[in-house]
Amino acid sequence: MKRDPFGSAALVLDRFLRELGRVSDEKERLTRTFLSPAMRHANRLVGSWMREAGLAVREDPLGNLIGRIEGRRPGAKTLVLGSHLDTVRDAGRFDGALGVLLPIVVLRQFRREGVRLPYALEVVGFSEEEGVRFPGAYFGSKGYTGRLRAADLRLRDDEGITVGQCLRERNDPRGRRPWKPPARAHSARELLGYLEVHIEQGPVLEKRGLACGVVSAIAGQTRSRIEFLGRAGHAGTTPMAMRRDALAGAAEFLLAAESLARKSPPLVATVGRLSARPGAANVIAGDADLSLDIRHPVDRHRLGALRILRSAAVKIARRRHLGVSFHVTQDNSSVACSAGLAALLSQSVRATQGKSMLLPSGAGHDAVVISSLAPVAMLFVRCRAGVSHSPAEHVEIGDLAVSINVVGDFLARLARR
Amino acid sequence: MKRDPFGSAALVLDRFLRELGRVSDEKERLTRTFLSPAMRHANRLVGSWMREAGLAVREDPLGNLIGRIEGRRPGAKTLVLGSHLDTVRDAGRFDGALGVLLPIVVLRQFRREGVRLPYALEVVGFSEEEGVRFPGAYFGSKGYTGRLRAADLRLRDDEGITVGQCLRERNDPRGRRPWKPPARAHSARELLGYLEVHIEQGPVLEKRGLACGVVSAIAGQTRSRIEFLGRAGHAGTTPMAMRRDALAGAAEFLLAAESLARKSPPLVATVGRLSARPGAANVIAGDADLSLDIRHPVDRHRLGALRILRSAAVKIARRRHLGVSFHVTQDNSSVACSAGLAALLSQSVRATQGKSMLLPSGAGHDAVVISSLAPVAMLFVRCRAGVSHSPAEHVEIGDLAVSINVVGDFLARLARR
Repeated sequence: MKRDPFGSAALVLDRFLRELGRVSDEKERLTRTFLSPAMRHANRLVGSWMREAGLAVREDPLGNLIGRIEGRRPGAKTLVLGSHLDTVRDAGRFDGALGVLLPIVVLRQFRREGVRLPYALEVVGFSEEEGVRFPGAYFGSKGYTGRLRAADLRLRDDEGITVGQCLRERNDPRGRRPWKPPARAHSARELLGYLEVHIEQGPVLEKRGLACGVVSAIAGQTRSRIEFLGRAGHAGTTPMAMRRDALAGAAEFLLAAESLARKSPPLVATVGRLSARPGAANVIAGDADLSLDIRHPVDRHRLGALRILRSAAVKIARRRHLGVSFHVTQDNSSVACSAGLAALLSQSVRATQGKSMLLPSGAGHDAVVISSLAPVAMLFVRCRAGVSHSPAEHVEIGDLAVSINVVGDFLARLARR
Repeated sequence: MKRDPFGSAALVLDRFLRELGRVSDEKERLTRTFLSPAMRHANRLVGSWMREAGLAVREDPLGNLIGRIEGRRPGAKTLVLGSHLDTVRDAGRFDGALGVLLPIVVLRQFRREGVRLPYALEVVGFSEEEGVRFPGAYFGSKGYTGRLRAADLRLRDDEGITVGQCLRERNDPRGRRPWKPPARAHSARELLGYLEVHIEQGPVLEKRGLACGVVSAIAGQTRSRIEFLGRAGHAGTTPMAMRRDALAGAAEFLLAAESLARKSPPLVATVGRLSARPGAANVIAGDADLSLDIRHPVDRHRLGALRILRSAAVKIARRRHLGVSFHVTQDNSSVACSAGLAALLSQSVRATQGKSMLLPSGAGHDAVVISSLAPVAMLFVRCRAGVSHSPAEHVEIGDLAVSINVVGDFLARLARR
């Protein structure tokens, strides 16, 4: 692909992002959830852009939108590019959409320039990644990789409808037998790899003044729920020395977690939810309940931090004569990106913007699921103030242009490899 | 009154407390609120016990239940004994009720023994102290002392009904003019003083192994609402060094308040309510909101602590790049108990249980309002584990016996003064 210094492809991408950003299940804000009317509309719209770019378009039983173009070499392997087309409630236009639309724009440009790659390409718009409607996520990429399990199908939305009912309604409304998830779209040996372009959702690239960077690994994550149990008491009549204040214990724990993470980068530790009961101004809290989210790209560092904080909670509780319970509610290992693909992508980034940087992803992505089947790479694109999951989400058009050039360069390098 | 070492009067008091404890607006738990059906029932029941004790009974326009017995000396001053008959929701049997029923039992005993006091006595069951139905409290004692203001009458309950509408409905349902609060029941010079018996609502007497103690002062209280403003962010992708975590600022402030109070007894400082927004496990809190309640029997120490904590909040916010707002929402000066009455009451306590102790009251009581009109004294009675405002509220029958004897002795000493 020719360099696009004036960003005409970026203008197309910008238009696509805006147009898709208006496709919503809600009137005043952007929300697209798994298999919703807006998702069907989005698949039609994005499918039409895929066709213009020369891709053959289909939808799989999960509602994943798949555009395919065969390679020059017969029987060549397939590179998958993609991200998700669903959104959180009141979302921005870039999270997910960028990773689907950017490859389409690149292929559109290739078509115009008559570039044909030796390998096959699939651009996938996954139907579900955000976990909004059901208490689970990654249904799209799980379906694509044949990893959808019976337990996933039993999850229920707020109205009591299961994932399985939803999918049967979509695929086999008159069928009598329970709906069965499809087999994986590809075997591992058919795939060259997977590349996902995504906004960073953090402030690192902005701070470093770079339009994009290469993801080294997707951090492992442990979520816990910690409860301190003290004794409720009258705020006026209980001397300080006789208190068993659960909220004070929780506050001390929060600061211990913050302090540990501050001195152990890139560890991050977050208490985002904290509640006290009874929760009245004049009653000492008898019970305080908090969430702890810790992430690190290296699993043993994350698990080490978990051990330290678990023992800190016990020590704090003991000193304050509190009870404590510590439950891990979610535990995901880190996913390393493919060293080979990351090196190649870094070359493309350096060739395009002068320098590159490797950074871990603190958030989960479809790439986590795809990594079970293929080597994965991710390109992070700078987003304003690191904001995501908000209408304030923003990517400069210049950064779109750089990212388009990076992906074009990457596809060409991969062809030469 | 003869000493009652075997507690027969205490058994009567225990029975009264149990019987009154069954008079509730709710089926499964004890709740009596201002002017409710249960309060009317309670006034009839307690009124009947007052009559048996030789008191002339009336209700004032606020629903206060007033039992009066004239003194031996014509034109003698009046000693008022009392507390409130309303309760919190899901209350215990002792808070408030004890201070009304205990004097009745003492006077019942006096009547039986033919004791007549030189001064007049009024036993008052105030109709409202807990502030449950309306966003204000002390309506009973405010009405009794002529301190009910137009602003009090405009306060609304959850259904939008004002205190004024309620009182008009009770006193003048067909009247056309707005209801006017009554004049005070007594002028200051008609009163000898006010004695309120109340459970301690704290653990000090229990820790010291005493059945009762004398209140030195009712602590002044400042309530504030403090808000820290940071920046919400992704828990996985925002490095620790780039965070502006409002909840962490709030936690640090909580511990600063706790630490100051711990080293400055009898200061107490409580953060009982703390909430974070958006309040999700995977989002750094952009906003944290907390209550601060500080109390001290000496006003300048309380106000000094407030100054220190206000500046601590500002320092914490500055260091963490947070915004902060600090609003005092309620500020009550301390009320000193009458030195003369407290000395007399201490003599009675010593004479009864061997030793006495002075302790401040951290909670507000009807005595706060009555102190505008008469010298006040308070007797605190030990309650199990310091628990109040709960069905678990408990006073040992032996402690009821001691307290009955203390009050009997006090009335006799006052007669001899």
